[in-house]
Amino acid sequence: MPSEFDLIAQYFTRPAPDGVLGVGDDCALFPVPAGMQVATSKDLLVSGRHFYPDVAPRALGHKALAVNLSDLGAMGARPIGCLLGLALPTAEPAWLAGFAEGFHALAARHGCALIGGDTTRSPHDLVISVTVFGAVDPARALRRDAAKPGDDIWVSGRLGAADVAYRLLDGQLPADPARLAATRGALEWPEPRVALGQALGGIAHAAIDLSDGLLQDLGHILTASKAGARIDYAALPLADALAGLPEPVLRRAALGGGDVYELCFTAPPEARDAVLAAGAHTGAPVARVGAITAEAGIQVRDAQGRPLADLPGGFDHFGPA
Amino acid sequence: MPSEFDLIAQYFTRPAPDGVLGVGDDCALFPVPAGMQVATSKDLLVSGRHFYPDVAPRALGHKALAVNLSDLGAMGARPIGCLLGLALPTAEPAWLAGFAEGFHALAARHGCALIGGDTTRSPHDLVISVTVFGAVDPARALRRDAAKPGDDIWVSGRLGAADVAYRLLDGQLPADPARLAATRGALEWPEPRVALGQALGGIAHAAIDLSDGLLQDLGHILTASKAGARIDYAALPLADALAGLPEPVLRRAALGGGDVYELCFTAPPEARDAVLAAGAHTGAPVARVGAITAEAGIQVRDAQGRPLADLPGGFDHFGPA
Repeated sequence: MPSEFDLIAQYFTRPAPDGVLGVGDDCALFPVPAGMQVATSKDLLVSGRHFYPDVAPRALGHKALAVNLSDLGAMGARPIGCLLGLALPTAEPAWLAGFAEGFHALAARHGCALIGGDTTRSPHDLVISVTVFGAVDPARALRRDAAKPGDDIWVSGRLGAADVAYRLLDGQLPADPARLAATRGALEWPEPRVALGQALGGIAHAAIDLSDGLLQDLGHILTASKAGARIDYAALPLADALAGLPEPVLRRAALGGGDVYELCFTAPPEARDAVLAAGAHTGAPVARVGAITAEAGIQVRDAQGRPLADLPGGFDHFGPA
Repeated sequence: MPSEFDLIAQYFTRPAPDGVLGVGDDCALFPVPAGMQVATSKDLLVSGRHFYPDVAPRALGHKALAVNLSDLGAMGARPIGCLLGLALPTAEPAWLAGFAEGFHALAARHGCALIGGDTTRSPHDLVISVTVFGAVDPARALRRDAAKPGDDIWVSGRLGAADVAYRLLDGQLPADPARLAATRGALEWPEPRVALGQALGGIAHAAIDLSDGLLQDLGHILTASKAGARIDYAALPLADALAGLPEPVLRRAALGGGDVYELCFTAPPEARDAVLAAGAHTGAPVARVGAITAEAGIQVRDAQGRPLADLPGGFDHFGPA
């Protein structure tokens, strides 16, 4: 009799793409195009910390892969495949089927087939560990240390909705079912900017994906690039669903809100048309929100050019990336 | 102030090898030699399931990487690098320093630098997720589906010590401090057969590493290769530290004992000298223990050629690999 955990493997086993050795050997094997390097990233998601235990399993399967694909996007890499590690306190078929469905659907859309992994029982916590692989021309990789003073700073998509959804669910904002309905998709179904990242190769200098909030993530670029930044607060593209919220809530969502999985990137001013074309070509709105400066630190300015006070706490508290 | 978890990252951050982009960007980047494919594997270790919570942290750091390097060895791949995911209920500096020391020491011996990963807090369970990458010529990869009827079956090293140590610690065998001292190293400090695996490329047909026990792991080769096997029980190389144990304990340790992290591989009879040379060249004892058959199933024979009864349960119960 196959064990419960052998059966679990069946939810996650799919035929491997041509030329790839997938699930079922000691290792998966995949080729890498000549001249390309392998880009790889691994994120852990832990129940009760990164997601609510009662989140829809299909959304969780989607998001577990999305946050990793977002790292490939932020590097400008083309997805090759992924590995999934699952430590599970229980094995419920309906949950597993939903999780696998959400995972595989996103994997298929991005050509990032599941080619291996490991499933085991854990005493208490549900822990999801995804590793993604992509291919990137190292000369076009969007490294964090490549921002130059004078570069424009851009963000893709809209900011703040995931943060507001999180605060509504967590009770930090008063209950508002309509607003929760309008923002929850951003929190639970982020769409990683993989195509945009690839299109920006050779155009943009540095990039990062927004997982911890704009100021904190931009700070990682600045630390690595030994530079500073000026952000024009009025230029930040807020999600429509935030309309009517008090200014402190908006400010926190825009500058400090995490779980966005949009890209923040820098590019020289002469590349503005190319950046706009890359956005249009890949269906990603892009907005120019500031500039890289030679002086360290981040200054956020209001529409009148005055430094904004009361920035979300923690943004200057980042340690090593 | 850097957070506790930023500080943790410092235990695991080391300079990346030349040509590799390591910790600190959205992705790590590494090159792959022309004509080679990437071999990758990911194993999860969960406290209370795969190791005792009070195991020495240095041993745990070693073993978390060793079981993954063992998969590269079983594929005949040369290590390139690895990612570490840690979900931790607490962050104790002494524990982290020990874990990192054991991990990095093994990584350095095998040229498998830690180039990225993720550390997070978990509510209860300590979960360790390592992903390894290696390079292998696909024409020389030791795939599970490559065994041929008539092949010899070989194992490296000695069998059974890890199983006996586990059963002594678990109370399934009566307390025996001297025997525990003689077997515990095999359980806690397995030395992955990475050099042997590479030396067997182009010589051996199929290989697997012994994590679940000889019969069960050999069974995965047989399923993938659509073949059977005959094992000569008297030829199995038992660890010296097992001398004097009752026959049922020996039999279970030799045929069903897991956590061995030696290689089981098949090679044509004309390659016997080459196999022995590969073992001698890499410091790995190798023993010929049986043969691949066209008929399905595994038959274990005693020294008189009679089928052995009372085989360890579960060996014919494997599900999908």
